[in-house]
Amino acid sequence: MKDTSPHEVDTAVRAAYEAFHVGRHVDLSTRASWLEAIADGLARNEAALVAIADRETSLGKPRLESELRRSIFQLELFAGEIRQGEHLDATIDHSDPHWGMGPRPDLRRVNQPVGVVGVFGASNFPFAFSVMGGDSASALAAGCSVVHKAHEAHPDLAEQTAQTVAAALESAGAPPGLFSLVAGRTAGENLVDHPLIKAVGFTGSTAGGRALLQRAQSRPEPIPFYGELGGINAVFVTTAAWQRRRESILKEYVNSFTLGMGQFCTKPGLLFVPATGREELRRLLSEALSGFTPIRLLSSGILEGYERSVTALRDQSEVDVLVEGTFAPQPAPTVLHTTGADVLAQPELLRQEMFGPASLVIEYEDDMKLPDLAGLLEGQLTTTLQTEPDETPTNLLEVLAGISGRVLWNGWPTGVTVSYAQHHGGPYPATTSNTTSVGTAAIRRFLRPVSYQSFPPGLLPEPLRDENPWRVPQRIDGRWDRPGQS
Amino acid sequence: MKDTSPHEVDTAVRAAYEAFHVGRHVDLSTRASWLEAIADGLARNEAALVAIADRETSLGKPRLESELRRSIFQLELFAGEIRQGEHLDATIDHSDPHWGMGPRPDLRRVNQPVGVVGVFGASNFPFAFSVMGGDSASALAAGCSVVHKAHEAHPDLAEQTAQTVAAALESAGAPPGLFSLVAGRTAGENLVDHPLIKAVGFTGSTAGGRALLQRAQSRPEPIPFYGELGGINAVFVTTAAWQRRRESILKEYVNSFTLGMGQFCTKPGLLFVPATGREELRRLLSEALSGFTPIRLLSSGILEGYERSVTALRDQSEVDVLVEGTFAPQPAPTVLHTTGADVLAQPELLRQEMFGPASLVIEYEDDMKLPDLAGLLEGQLTTTLQTEPDETPTNLLEVLAGISGRVLWNGWPTGVTVSYAQHHGGPYPATTSNTTSVGTAAIRRFLRPVSYQSFPPGLLPEPLRDENPWRVPQRIDGRWDRPGQS
Repeated sequence: MKDTSPHEVDTAVRAAYEAFHVGRHVDLSTRASWLEAIADGLARNEAALVAIADRETSLGKPRLESELRRSIFQLELFAGEIRQGEHLDATIDHSDPHWGMGPRPDLRRVNQPVGVVGVFGASNFPFAFSVMGGDSASALAAGCSVVHKAHEAHPDLAEQTAQTVAAALESAGAPPGLFSLVAGRTAGENLVDHPLIKAVGFTGSTAGGRALLQRAQSRPEPIPFYGELGGINAVFVTTAAWQRRRESILKEYVNSFTLGMGQFCTKPGLLFVPATGREELRRLLSEALSGFTPIRLLSSGILEGYERSVTALRDQSEVDVLVEGTFAPQPAPTVLHTTGADVLAQPELLRQEMFGPASLVIEYEDDMKLPDLAGLLEGQLTTTLQTEPDETPTNLLEVLAGISGRVLWNGWPTGVTVSYAQHHGGPYPATTSNTTSVGTAAIRRFLRPVSYQSFPPGLLPEPLRDENPWRVPQRIDGRWDRPGQS
Repeated sequence: MKDTSPHEVDTAVRAAYEAFHVGRHVDLSTRASWLEAIADGLARNEAALVAIADRETSLGKPRLESELRRSIFQLELFAGEIRQGEHLDATIDHSDPHWGMGPRPDLRRVNQPVGVVGVFGASNFPFAFSVMGGDSASALAAGCSVVHKAHEAHPDLAEQTAQTVAAALESAGAPPGLFSLVAGRTAGENLVDHPLIKAVGFTGSTAGGRALLQRAQSRPEPIPFYGELGGINAVFVTTAAWQRRRESILKEYVNSFTLGMGQFCTKPGLLFVPATGREELRRLLSEALSGFTPIRLLSSGILEGYERSVTALRDQSEVDVLVEGTFAPQPAPTVLHTTGADVLAQPELLRQEMFGPASLVIEYEDDMKLPDLAGLLEGQLTTTLQTEPDETPTNLLEVLAGISGRVLWNGWPTGVTVSYAQHHGGPYPATTSNTTSVGTAAIRRFLRPVSYQSFPPGLLPEPLRDENPWRVPQRIDGRWDRPGQS
């Protein structure tokens, strides 16, 4: 797919803007049906799409099929969410002459879509964070239109997916231009700069994300930049857990950090374990890794970056190698090693993301030091505690909640469900905002509230009318009324 | 009050950080009681505080008393809001082996306070947007601690208010350091730069706010900057309304734009009226302004800025003077004039904020052109439509909702109630985010979500437990349960 010219980007954004103004007038059920039409279109084209993805990536059909299923499910879940009107936060304050600070006028607030959204596709999820991934789905659910910047790692899939989406939207009666695709680095920059773009969703590297964040904030009109920049994902194993089940913990750890060749933002990149001895760790890890068959990384660029990051960490004098990997096209996993004392002296050791099948094991001396060690970490998408129920360091849990978007108990961070309670985000550098890019709450990013003061009933948006024609949840004078819920 | 040194700022922020970690463990009712203790302390000291404010500003006792009452009411309203737990968005997804995209683990999300918040006081609201104004109150309600940068326009009031707050918090058993005061421009910058500051609330000029926004986003760890930067607040009068009640409209307009000497971010700075003729407008406006007695502006700096901005607009060749004002210490109001054709040719005429008792009247030729004229505006805190019910340009309303935080029908934008449905914000440059600085929704700015995966019940935060010990609203498997609501 060839790069989109500045003129073509402008045309796409203007068409998206027109579509936004047509599309914003439909009711929730119609908008939900557009998402469902896209879901149906993707499902009908599953075989063809997965075949293209399989050709353009090395991820393999089972993974690709489940990723596409996830993307389809996500559209259906979001359709259900907006059909309920949960995302509107419709709030009605009737006029009140006795309001505590003085007479209150009739005031009503509802969330409205922000406009045209620019979405950047990710290399590592050809479906779930690409053309019709979480950012695109949540922006469309919010009522926005989307111009998507394809990731160059799977261009044919991007084009085919976009065609599927466009055909589905057309057949469902959505306005033309509601969704479109652009390609190329310059097109991405043009997108962030375009005055009609009102928000950006991004999944990618910290360096690239940071540059685009600055760009978005330096526009004449700064706009929100929802960047999911990656993760280190520290896992802490207590002495109690280590004594009872170190072998299974290491087996599960290896499964998690090598899953998808470690090309997940939720890959466990750090494992804190009690002092054990390098030889014992080496033996256990080699055993756990023994049956592993590597596959190709997503691109040669990722392989180069992977080698660079692993080498940079390995070359630190405080770091040694537990399991020697390779940087072949199908790289064997690498496990590095350091100690709690070393990272206390040099916390930067904990901040090197290695995007690929590598992880760092840190041996610590004393469970009491775990909160201090956790305190060295930057913001994390996830942190995990492996422990025994009766011996839980609650002070460590508090530190973990303070630096993470999601905290796991005796689990592993790879595998991110799409649901109501999901939060896939975290303090910087995990993300650039306090929002989530996964789950129904992701829709909120692309909405902004508007209040209406003293409006005649007939001119209010439907969700704000007393007779509630759309039967959405309404907070009325401070109390919620949910007609859809018995 | 003397400037706070960098070392003192650091000490204050560290103390606030310690207080945050102590304070975050209390239940909602205890935290609410802290807000109520502050409200009580302010109420008990009303006479003394108003006397100082009256000495340091020219706003007059009635206005100052009602502003303090508003601030007290706000604390009480927020106390009630957090006692309900509405702000927590507690969400519980039980594990579900049949979840559409594959088995779902037990996942629960709750909003948690972000940490220490820096708040900048405003000149024009010595109570409502200063030491214990909306930003401070909402940050404390969220569970954050606050370091407040006093505005130099009322230093004694800042100190006395801060002492009242500190005494109230101490007597209520809140941890020391939860709230503190710093002063001086450098202290403000140090505050934004401090690594333990996790969000900033700001009310002030577009230039100052934009500089601090860049500063907050350029930190090693970028943080949210909630800036309320001001407003133009366009008012549109339809031909129908003008024909029936032009005199009362102009009387109300004059009352609104001169209220508090026009030193409100919601002052109506633009009035679009049908073609009438300058002489007739001049006559009506002079009549409406005839009884007006000016008072001093808030500071000599504001007077200088006011003269500069009015002169800049008046000197444009497309602009003439309808009512000649003065720039005396107690300035007589100024009304400037231009036409719809002129602003279509030069939209910048609509973008000059004049902070003080001045406004611009635009005569338009044709109601059909109103949406085009509105389309020239930048983001607004408010826009207003003055019309007759049976002759409403709905296409204009749609444009207004698209550029405003609050849209008013046959009202005037000054006077911002504090309630559940209030949204005091708007697209840039009105604010720097999609949030509000007034109303209960302001609390949300200082929270971030954390998800807990597969946690044992006893280790979950109280709002996420199945037995719901705090009786907060919980969304359980997609459906809301509100035990506090019958």
